[in-house]
Amino acid sequence: MSRSSSPEIAQESPKHAFAGVFALLAPHMAELDRFLQGQLADFEPEIRSMVNYCIDTSGKRIRPALVFLSGWSDTGAVSPELVRAAAVVELVHLATLVHDDIMDAADVRRSRRTAVREFGPTAAVLLGDALFAHALHLATDFPTSEVCAAVSESTRRVCAGEIVQTLRRGSTDVTPADYQRIIELKTAELFRVSCFLGARLGGSEPGYVEAADRFGRHLGVAYQIYDDLADFFGREDSIGKTLGTDLASGKLTLPLFTLLDRLPPFERAALAEEIGGRRPAQPALRLRQMLELGVFAVVEAAVRAEIEAARASLAEWPGRPPTRHLMALGDVLLSQVSTLRPA
Amino acid sequence: MSRSSSPEIAQESPKHAFAGVFALLAPHMAELDRFLQGQLADFEPEIRSMVNYCIDTSGKRIRPALVFLSGWSDTGAVSPELVRAAAVVELVHLATLVHDDIMDAADVRRSRRTAVREFGPTAAVLLGDALFAHALHLATDFPTSEVCAAVSESTRRVCAGEIVQTLRRGSTDVTPADYQRIIELKTAELFRVSCFLGARLGGSEPGYVEAADRFGRHLGVAYQIYDDLADFFGREDSIGKTLGTDLASGKLTLPLFTLLDRLPPFERAALAEEIGGRRPAQPALRLRQMLELGVFAVVEAAVRAEIEAARASLAEWPGRPPTRHLMALGDVLLSQVSTLRPA
Repeated sequence: MSRSSSPEIAQESPKHAFAGVFALLAPHMAELDRFLQGQLADFEPEIRSMVNYCIDTSGKRIRPALVFLSGWSDTGAVSPELVRAAAVVELVHLATLVHDDIMDAADVRRSRRTAVREFGPTAAVLLGDALFAHALHLATDFPTSEVCAAVSESTRRVCAGEIVQTLRRGSTDVTPADYQRIIELKTAELFRVSCFLGARLGGSEPGYVEAADRFGRHLGVAYQIYDDLADFFGREDSIGKTLGTDLASGKLTLPLFTLLDRLPPFERAALAEEIGGRRPAQPALRLRQMLELGVFAVVEAAVRAEIEAARASLAEWPGRPPTRHLMALGDVLLSQVSTLRPA
Repeated sequence: MSRSSSPEIAQESPKHAFAGVFALLAPHMAELDRFLQGQLADFEPEIRSMVNYCIDTSGKRIRPALVFLSGWSDTGAVSPELVRAAAVVELVHLATLVHDDIMDAADVRRSRRTAVREFGPTAAVLLGDALFAHALHLATDFPTSEVCAAVSESTRRVCAGEIVQTLRRGSTDVTPADYQRIIELKTAELFRVSCFLGARLGGSEPGYVEAADRFGRHLGVAYQIYDDLADFFGREDSIGKTLGTDLASGKLTLPLFTLLDRLPPFERAALAEEIGGRRPAQPALRLRQMLELGVFAVVEAAVRAEIEAARASLAEWPGRPPTRHLMALGDVLLSQVSTLRPA
């Protein structure tokens, strides 16, 4: 399989791998921040400060990065069309975060009070709606309705994925195929559409746009599995959010599937009761069992397989500027996974 | 001021006035229902039954009626473009209802359990989002992005209006100008955009589209004031929903403004405490005071003034087929108001 790396990124140490991408994208992200700030004037004066609260700059901006990298040209110019598309996907993402935090009754995100905590649930529902609506309004500023069509469909699929996940909470009657379907919808959709839009607006031909689209989908699945792995194996100070919430909230993810599968029947039944909320979660015990039963390696292999599939999508297009950077993103994610590996 | 009436509508008794519009629009509404049912296949299989639950047929379908009437042609043909636009505005409206019912913790709507009651708040937030996203996706199926741009902007304004209303709940520090602004955003926007889309897609020239747009905005304001009046003076069996909720939830509407204005200072302070939730609401007392102090006539005059303004928008275009029917809608609303008038 063809692999190539961007020197700008590969020279970074694993710990600062994401920072490497961001050094490359610094002018793009600065332009995106200016663009997002400029959007405030389009909101009604009464809600501007609330919108501004949500458009903070401390997020990882992964989806905008995918737009910029998929539309990369070697001139390094920051295309206004890519900035607009990056703003669209980031606003959709922010809207989903605002609504997620209501549903999870989350108090803190990115070291600040969540919108629901700051403004109350009613205003937060409506604020998320207004962010969605504005994202789609921005998407209508392109010459054709293609961007708006792609983003609105993607948004619907993200919601469908989250609904399915919600309906399955606390149940162990979820198959690995269900899990794959949920993460393809709730996470991989926006990764996919970000790559699609970047490649399309960057002027690539249909074959390449399709390849970038597939890359984004696989990378999104890989990212979600990594995120689910970090919920058990990560350290809060390096991941930057509260961990251990999946077991506590009854969310069946790949690490838990794998553990369930490897536990003796009696222990399996006890874990199922914890997932169902019928007995208190025992995160320390479950992590110890995961360590003893080799769960990490299984899940890591699943991330690796998705990253390989993502790279395979671009294997036929080794010379393209976006290919170089997107391939490197796979390395970045793998190095992130390796930082979670138990000693 | 020019006034004309559609014979199909004007011959109805006041009580069945809306039914008159619906007899005229029966083929259009049947087509709309078929179209909405056909949309189910576009949603992920896991959420189809939830979407179907929301797309019930018992709603008043006022916004689709505005689309159809504003785009009326004397052939009476049902234009597929108008059906699609009617579906877009109705889906946006349904999405706002799903979210409103979460925020109001409402159990029943149109004699059935609300989505939030049926599926829980988490799924209902996401279901509303999915309905929004699909409405905007449908809007991208027009040849230009104009429909999607108009609807997404309108949706953002509706949300802004509801946010402002939410932030002001329980406060008497709301001016009549604030009230006007809130209802222009939360209600009149979708009425306005429905008329705009109908006239535009019906092929009218820019001057008429603008006139229809203004008509819709004024009719929407009139409708909301009527709705606020009905909350105090209506009978639940004829209005079809729980009444008396505005005082109980601290929402300052025109009937309450007018009452506050006419009460002696001591009573005014007591009512302000009820609105602020610092003492129990006394709906029977407040209604009696409204009757004694002539509140009905003041609010009725405000509805009438908005309907006159709506009609004035179309006064220069008396011969147009949409004009006839839209003018008649004003009569319909006035006759609805008169059914509320105290004996």
